[in-house]
Amino acid sequence: MDMKMNAAELQAFLERDFPQVAGDFDFVEVAPPVVVMGLSASDKHLRPGGTVSGPSMFGLADVCAYFCILSALGPVALAVTTNCSIDFMRKPAPGRLLCRMELLKLGRALAVCEGRLFSEGAADKPVARASLTYSIPPR
Amino acid sequence: MDMKMNAAELQAFLERDFPQVAGDFDFVEVAPPVVVMGLSASDKHLRPGGTVSGPSMFGLADVCAYFCILSALGPVALAVTTNCSIDFMRKPAPGRLLCRMELLKLGRALAVCEGRLFSEGAADKPVARASLTYSIPPR
Amino acid sequence: MDMKMNAAELQAFLERDFPQVAGDFDFVEVAPPVVVMGLSASDKHLRPGGTVSGPSMFGLADVCAYFCILSALGPVALAVTTNCSIDFMRKPAPGRLLCRMELLKLGRALAVCEGRLFSEGAADKPVARASLTYSIPPR
Amino acid sequence: MDMKMNAAELQAFLERDFPQVAGDFDFVEVAPPVVVMGLSASDKHLRPGGTVSGPSMFGLADVCAYFCILSALGPVALAVTTNCSIDFMRKPAPGRLLCRMELLKLGRALAVCEGRLFSEGAADKPVARASLTYSIPPR
Repeated sequence: MDMKMNAAELQAFLERDFPQVAGDFDFVEVAPPVVVMGLSASDKHLRPGGTVSGPSMFGLADVCAYFCILSALGPVALAVTTNCSIDFMRKPAPGRLLCRMELLKLGRALAVCEGRLFSEGAADKPVARASLTYSIPPR
Repeated sequence: MDMKMNAAELQAFLERDFPQVAGDFDFVEVAPPVVVMGLSASDKHLRPGGTVSGPSMFGLADVCAYFCILSALGPVALAVTTNCSIDFMRKPAPGRLLCRMELLKLGRALAVCEGRLFSEGAADKPVARASLTYSIPPR
Repeated sequence: MDMKMNAAELQAFLERDFPQVAGDFDFVEVAPPVVVMGLSASDKHLRPGGTVSGPSMFGLADVCAYFCILSALGPVALAVTTNCSIDFMRKPAPGRLLCRMELLKLGRALAVCEGRLFSEGAADKPVARASLTYSIPPR
Repeated sequence: MDMKMNAAELQAFLERDFPQVAGDFDFVEVAPPVVVMGLSASDKHLRPGGTVSGPSMFGLADVCAYFCILSALGPVALAVTTNCSIDFMRKPAPGRLLCRMELLKLGRALAVCEGRLFSEGAADKPVARASLTYSIPPR
């Protein structure tokens, strides 16, 4: 799958279009159809006990799927999430959380991604899995 | 379905166990198997353009399902989300977002909820629907 | 929501386009955005013990969503299921199974339905819930 | 992950407990946490045009997840599907369909699987992806 945006271009896009959350995320690997992103959890992402909250995990999966699609599609600002199915399987360890997302289908109107979230260094014990569908605007 | 916790009890539970987000949410109706909660969106919940973000909608559905279960089950702090499937159908209007969640099954080990999110006054045009499964710890 | 096809028209469509399964299903109510269909389970739908199998419940939800969309959209043969999320909550009683499906969104490219399956006479104890997305071909 | 049942043992279990469908499926690979099964589609699995129907794809994913769990858990007949999320991405080619399912979590009460369906020889163009949760009875 051809790369239409590299890590630096995705990073610039993230900072310009999502200024409120850009500081939370970083790109670990951009190799379409796969993109890996990290979440540097701060207080606002944590639940009592210090584990990353469900909405923060959802947010990481959602942003990672979005940039996974953009890495293969190019800068299309109007793609929107239409569906997400997420399974929470283990409690995350304190510390950094990664998401590895894979683009399974890039169609005319829909893109489908699937990925896993895991604590850094523990990819074999995923804390969650997620599949997401994005609607792609007509061009 | 019997009510095991009323709105005031759920509110106290929310403030004690989720202090970081308690101010974001309020109880509109507690009538098991149905609970309606509201999200008073502030800057952190919004995306450019002023619409409520996907993770904030997920968070509203998740917290509403949690308290929907507690309203029928009583104060069990350790129930955890195991699955969520959410469909985003329309862009929310600026302003307050409500979630109406219904408890469909309260089993020994699992509870299943289903609900809809809508802008206040527009229940007939839901912005999202969500179904969630919670794992209930052995008693 | 306007009705574009009534029960008799949907029935004719079912018999012409799905001859292999047409005899399994019947229309109980067609009132867009809601359609109720029944499954007259025969041996091929049953698992040991006499309960309706998971694939048969999935099939009932899928066909009911399809005709729910057609009742509001008109005869568009090429709509295809893109996603289904289904929760199995209770074991069905032996006998007839109904599905009540509601069309939540009929967009240009996507339609979203949500519904419940229950044994006849036991709508308050759903055996399953399902949400489905259909992709609608460009017209 | 230890293997508790091998292909021959799973095959015997399939024939004894699911006699109505046993002839439809076969085991291609049993290597926990991964199991690959095939569906030899006959008329009852096909839609007009000769493609495998949605319920048949759901059925293949469901049975493959079940035996994926049993390969790691041993012969536990009462595990039941509680949730399935499935995305249909491409039309299957005529002919044999495979499902590669991976067990992501084997907990005390819940097991989570994730897998892909593809036409034989085309694993890089999956026709569907599915995630399933099974409830495991107390032992």
